[in-house]
This record gives sequence, structure tokens and C-alpha cells, in this order.
Amino acid sequence: MARRTGRRPGNPDTREAILDAARTAFAERGFDATSIRSIAGTAGVDPALVHHYFGGKDRLFLAAMDAPLDPGELLPRMLGGDADGVGERLVRTFLEVWDSPAGAAAVALLRSGMSNEWTARLLREFLVTQVLRRILDHLGVAPAERALRGSLVATQMIGLAMMRHVIRLEPVASAPAETLVAAIAPTVQRYLRGDLS
Amino acid sequence: MARRTGRRPGNPDTREAILDAARTAFAERGFDATSIRSIAGTAGVDPALVHHYFGGKDRLFLAAMDAPLDPGELLPRMLGGDADGVGERLVRTFLEVWDSPAGAAAVALLRSGMSNEWTARLLREFLVTQVLRRILDHLGVAPAERALRGSLVATQMIGLAMMRHVIRLEPVASAPAETLVAAIAPTVQRYLRGDLS
Repeated sequence: MARRTGRRPGNPDTREAILDAARTAFAERGFDATSIRSIAGTAGVDPALVHHYFGGKDRLFLAAMDAPLDPGELLPRMLGGDADGVGERLVRTFLEVWDSPAGAAAVALLRSGMSNEWTARLLREFLVTQVLRRILDHLGVAPAERALRGSLVATQMIGLAMMRHVIRLEPVASAPAETLVAAIAPTVQRYLRGDLS
Repeated sequence: MARRTGRRPGNPDTREAILDAARTAFAERGFDATSIRSIAGTAGVDPALVHHYFGGKDRLFLAAMDAPLDPGELLPRMLGGDADGVGERLVRTFLEVWDSPAGAAAVALLRSGMSNEWTARLLREFLVTQVLRRILDHLGVAPAERALRGSLVATQMIGLAMMRHVIRLEPVASAPAETLVAAIAPTVQRYLRGDLS
């Protein structure tokens, strides 16, 4: 996981300059169109230093977003196993994360995305490039369907996080995770692989 | 509709005192446990004056929330017709409201509910008492199942509003309403009346 504590290499001012440049670039141009080279240029440092501090574009993006964890590390749990069970494993893993200590940071990020257009852009890039694209790639969903299927999954999962952790509507707010997995997994499974018309 | 403009009876200070007392009471004690009499007491006015200004507890609640419309006026469109189509009509009506000028006020309310615990409580009471309870009553859903079914519907619908109007994740952000109705209606229909286990 991209831990928020522990040893962080380098000069704090230089780190912060790189993270500022990264936030601006990822929000303005999106994840795909942003290079470590361009971020390094804006921050006035050598690209090798960015690699040394952050270890790659994905990690830099997660650090710039202050993401509480790296979804890449959870993907094997969601994607290992049969394709018919991926909806169930996705909902279960999602609930484990949001119900864990990392959930508080995720709620803070979601709140910030509600009130700040730039955080909303970063959240969008995060959802697409770090989570949804990887799942849909793995499932072999036709490229023309990926964006719609991915964003439908996002409507259900973000709505679940909102109702369980922010608005706190009962019984979703305090239901056992497995009750919600049973109810919501078929929705996610259909959005990923089922009939949408 | 509970219009936000036009003639409003009474002294503005008195109106505001009543609305302040109503917001506090509805957020602290919930809609069901709050009476017009107690709100009038807090505001230092006669209950008859509250009725005269606001016309009843539902209307007072909507005014206290600054709700952009009265969901009660939309219910006939959702609930008229066969029970198998209620999910579809609910999603279509929801999108019409959020895509209309009233949508901006709804987004503002949702944003406020994300950052303010009291607005979150009012939103919760609004969802349950003004929208979900009425739909579930009408459908004759078993009382023991109503809260879970209603809050599952809320996860999907609020997530849809978030992704379409706040985070603006494509293609959900700009898809034709009917594309989303086709994809999401079966989810809502299942949450209302289908198998959840």
C-alpha cells in the first residue's frame, strides 16, 4: 500500500513542489496525457529525481491525490477467480476498504471532490485509470463498452460509500457487509458483463 | 411544487425564526418525532401561524431544507402504472429533475450534506419520509423490508446524481437519459421488489 506514514525520501520542499506540479498536471490534462518529464519540468527538478522519490507515474498520482491506498494492490483479490464472481468480490473488497481505517481518508477525498472541481477531476482520473480501466481490461470487456460499464459501476459504488459513510442512511450505514454484498453484487456484475439495454 | 420564488406570506423575520426552529428540530429529532406545535414553541409563535405560513409539516420541512421541489408532486408519475415498471419510471423522473433547473439546487443540497452533519441529517429525513417511504408504501413492500430496500435504492440514485452532476464521470455525465434509464432501471426494480439475497 501507498502508506501515508513512514520513511519518505528526499527534501520535503522538493517533494511538495513535485506533488503540486503533479496535482495541477493530472487535473488539467488528465492522467494519460501527463508525463513525469513534464511534471519534473514544472517543479524544476530532474525526472530521475521524481522516479527516485515516487517510483513511477501511478505511485506519483496516488501520492498527489493523497490516496489512502493503492487500488492496484487490491485488484488481484477482485480479479482472481471466476468472472461470474467479480461483482461480488469487487463489492466485498470495496466495503472492506471503506470500513477500514483507510475509509476515513477516502471519505475526506470524496467530500473534497464534492466541493472542489480540481479534486473532482483527480477523483475521476483516479476512478478511471487506477480502478475501472484495470478491471474492465482484465474482464476483456469490448473497448466500446468500457466507459459506460465502468461509469455505471462507479455510480453504484460511490453511492454506496455516500450512504454508508457520509449521509449514513440506515440500514445501509450499519448493515453487515455481507448483506450489502448479497444485495449489490448482482448490480455490479450486470454493469460489468450483463445486458444494459 | 414548493416554489422558491413568488408570494410568501408573513413577516420575513418570523418566517426565518420558524424555519430555523424547524431545521434544528427536524435534524435533531427527525421528521416523525417533530411536531408543528414544538417548532412554533421554539420560534415563539402560535402553531396556527406556522400552518398559515407553510401549510403543514411536509411543506414546512421542504421549506426548511430549501428543497427545490416537492417530491410528493412527482410520485403519481412514478407510481401510476404497473408495478413492474416503477423502477424505470423512478429513474426517468429522477433524471428529469436533476437535469432540469431544479437540479442545480439539488446538487447544492447534496454538496452541503457532504460537509455538514446537520444537512446530512435533513437529507436523510428527506429521502426517507418524502420519497422512499411513500414509494415503498405504495408498492406494498413488507414493513420489515422497507428500510433496506429503500436505502439500497438511495445508494444507486444518489450515486447516479453524484457521477452525472458532481464528479461528472463520462459517459454517465452526458449520456442521454434513456441510456441510463435502460441500464439502471432493472437495478432499482430489483431493490424495490426483487430478490436481495
